[in-house]
Amino acid sequence: MPRKVDHEQRRRRIAEAVWVIVALRGLAAVSLRDVAAEAGISLGQVQHYFKTKDQVLRYAGQRLVELAGEELRRSLAARPEPPSPRGTIRAVAEQTVPATPERRAGAAVWYAFVTRAVTAPEPAALIRDAWAGTHALITEALRAAQRAGQLDHRLDPALSAATLQTVIDGLVPQVLVGHRTPAEALSVVDHHLDLVFSTPT
Amino acid sequence: MPRKVDHEQRRRRIAEAVWVIVALRGLAAVSLRDVAAEAGISLGQVQHYFKTKDQVLRYAGQRLVELAGEELRRSLAARPEPPSPRGTIRAVAEQTVPATPERRAGAAVWYAFVTRAVTAPEPAALIRDAWAGTHALITEALRAAQRAGQLDHRLDPALSAATLQTVIDGLVPQVLVGHRTPAEALSVVDHHLDLVFSTPT
Repeated sequence: MPRKVDHEQRRRRIAEAVWVIVALRGLAAVSLRDVAAEAGISLGQVQHYFKTKDQVLRYAGQRLVELAGEELRRSLAARPEPPSPRGTIRAVAEQTVPATPERRAGAAVWYAFVTRAVTAPEPAALIRDAWAGTHALITEALRAAQRAGQLDHRLDPALSAATLQTVIDGLVPQVLVGHRTPAEALSVVDHHLDLVFSTPT
Repeated sequence: MPRKVDHEQRRRRIAEAVWVIVALRGLAAVSLRDVAAEAGISLGQVQHYFKTKDQVLRYAGQRLVELAGEELRRSLAARPEPPSPRGTIRAVAEQTVPATPERRAGAAVWYAFVTRAVTAPEPAALIRDAWAGTHALITEALRAAQRAGQLDHRLDPALSAATLQTVIDGLVPQVLVGHRTPAEALSVVDHHLDLVFSTPT
């Protein structure tokens, strides 16, 4: 179905154009016209898929979350052997802390959505779903670590996962603003993982 | 010096007007004209203190940081006895997690600055300074806890403070977006404090 593939590719190119505009000029600067110019297609072609700014923003946000999930799954699958529970959580951190220009742009777009979500209900649901997904992944890794005797069985996996997720996510603005390098941010994660995994099993 | 006091009050009222606009409509929506209208004074009166949008934004950001520091010192001083090191860190968390409409607005303004700081150097310095101040406060509390035998002396205070600060700050967007209630956010902080303070001294 070559036509369907073309549509999907065009929608993805539109999402990428939105990210570039948001990263460089903020969410408020997004217009269908500028998205078309950035994507190198006509306004009519953008409007074929997205009638309003809100629609194109929602898709660009969803695609950002989707892409992050795909990248994480790919990076875990590419390892020679399945990662340990701790290794899975480290992989989430490596993928979340923005170490490349692309990741910085992605993270900046994400924070623009978070800031907007304070007053707009639409991106809030998307963001909560994404957080719930990461939380479930980390909780499952901690449960697996407990079953394998690598983690104190008295630790509450959901609450410990909440802390880990908060540490990982909380480092992102610190890296974006230049308060910490990506390597320093990952050493904070490792320090916290040491603490969590050093409790008596 | 009644005239000086008037000036200070007027500048503060202008800062509050900026916060309201940023919280409701975002940083991009701030104009000197709208700030004047929100503050209930003339455009000329605003321009007496601030010539540009960047100047008024900088002041509004500085004032936000200043006010948070004042509130924390007041809340610590109001206690019947000096708080323990752990109590001091808990107080930072209570003050940071936005539990009232005013705090929500303040936090939303803060995140708007963080998002802007990704591409603009000006607010980045302000944000890094504010983070460095909180980090120093938490590091000092952890050192005091080590001296008092309340905390494992092998823990690196600066690195442990970084994790604590990241947990506290990382909870703020989660509360803003409705992913966690303020009480749930503070229970994540308590869970982490339990872990930090439960390591053998």
